[in-house]
Amino acid sequence: MTAKQIFEQIKKKRSFLCIGLDTDLKKIPSFLLENEDPVFEFNRLIIEATHDITIAYKPNVAFYESQAYKGWISLEKTADYIKSNYPEIFLIADAKRGDIGNTSDLYARSFFEKMNFDAVTVAPYMGHDSVEPFLKYKDKWVILLALTSNTGAGDFQFITDENNEELYKKVLKKASRWGDLNKIMFVVGATKAPMLEEIREITPDHFLLIPGIGAQGGSLNDVVKYGKNKQCGLIVNSSRSIIYADSSENFASAARKEALILQKQMSAYL
Amino acid sequence: MTAKQIFEQIKKKRSFLCIGLDTDLKKIPSFLLENEDPVFEFNRLIIEATHDITIAYKPNVAFYESQAYKGWISLEKTADYIKSNYPEIFLIADAKRGDIGNTSDLYARSFFEKMNFDAVTVAPYMGHDSVEPFLKYKDKWVILLALTSNTGAGDFQFITDENNEELYKKVLKKASRWGDLNKIMFVVGATKAPMLEEIREITPDHFLLIPGIGAQGGSLNDVVKYGKNKQCGLIVNSSRSIIYADSSENFASAARKEALILQKQMSAYL
Repeated sequence: MTAKQIFEQIKKKRSFLCIGLDTDLKKIPSFLLENEDPVFEFNRLIIEATHDITIAYKPNVAFYESQAYKGWISLEKTADYIKSNYPEIFLIADAKRGDIGNTSDLYARSFFEKMNFDAVTVAPYMGHDSVEPFLKYKDKWVILLALTSNTGAGDFQFITDENNEELYKKVLKKASRWGDLNKIMFVVGATKAPMLEEIREITPDHFLLIPGIGAQGGSLNDVVKYGKNKQCGLIVNSSRSIIYADSSENFASAARKEALILQKQMSAYL
Repeated sequence: MTAKQIFEQIKKKRSFLCIGLDTDLKKIPSFLLENEDPVFEFNRLIIEATHDITIAYKPNVAFYESQAYKGWISLEKTADYIKSNYPEIFLIADAKRGDIGNTSDLYARSFFEKMNFDAVTVAPYMGHDSVEPFLKYKDKWVILLALTSNTGAGDFQFITDENNEELYKKVLKKASRWGDLNKIMFVVGATKAPMLEEIREITPDHFLLIPGIGAQGGSLNDVVKYGKNKQCGLIVNSSRSIIYADSSENFASAARKEALILQKQMSAYL
């Protein structure tokens, strides 16, 4: 998928929403537990209720791994369901991988070949050769961690060098040269939205994936104010506040309602 | 497992060797492909041939993930086989995980509860709250990336702050305070062995996991010279040069032969 195709979808749906499929067996409505694969069934119903107002889904791989091989089957089925039925949707594996070259190569093979994900989140600590194997694939994306939404972001991401430049800015600068605008985007937490102004000086044209709206407390207004560019340039993720809006049999329509609130706000900004 | 128990095993086996189970379906002897689970069968035979001269095994999770849910089954079976038959072995999931708290929590649950790993490798970029969920488990370990063996290590790990201190040293200093000597160890690549002298000034007593001996070209002599402490303090990993020493039906005894060369060198240093 190209940046242009993502932007086309944003314009068509008047939305730059990504729904995080952080599907936890302990949190889904209990009536679903009768299904052979309750996690997949939950995802399928969420997808059916929201695919016309969201441009991306982002399964968080940890939630699937925590169910061991069965979780892996649910993840594969979810990815397959989305890309078979809604191929225009941008499908992100939130995996935060990154290892030496021959190992990253295998992670890339797993998410881009075995499963049909469009993008994988990657951690930058090990540098360029840990990221390159993901960049070899045409029309596939690396979403590199730059500035994360958690409190621990302060431990290392703000360390400044002799020119008083923070680590996260060095990540943005260096990695912007590793892949073009159709290959790489960055994670910037919504809880750090005012910093988007400086980030846009470094990477004016890249897409940014923004987690932290909703349960983590980030403001959509600030994200748009400081981060939006001519091609929108934003994919804003919300997970728990949408998918767990209701725990009854109406969970999917409740999820749609929550997603619709965000989509309407987004529509006004476009 | 405690640091003392690891040291006891080192003294008993006169070895501080870890064998990396980077088991690739494309590289294992072809006669194994007839088995129902060739990856597990390969691992089992390697384990049977080497368990008395190695103190740890380190399956690299990427190799298993690349086979999707089937790989996950092979990983679970391998972990179970090792801990059922050789409970004294230190079992490391080389996964390089790390995410916001509620997500790291799930990764920890996966490796420490669903599977019986003693340790997980974790990336430090997201800071303390991404590591803490792994530290909550008694007798389980975080092995945090500090200084990796790949060329990309130079991109960010050597960035210096206003006091001219490199990022990897800040990781060592901060994270040393997150968990005691029975909870946290660090990855330091053998290709950077001379830097172990400075690393030992920061963390004199922590165990270090040293990859990069063998295929990646690091020197065991340098690792011992600069990194060994009173409790040995070293776990040296070798993967490809041991497990792929031979591709015939004799692969397991060839692996033992390679492991034995390293174990004999190690014995002389103890």
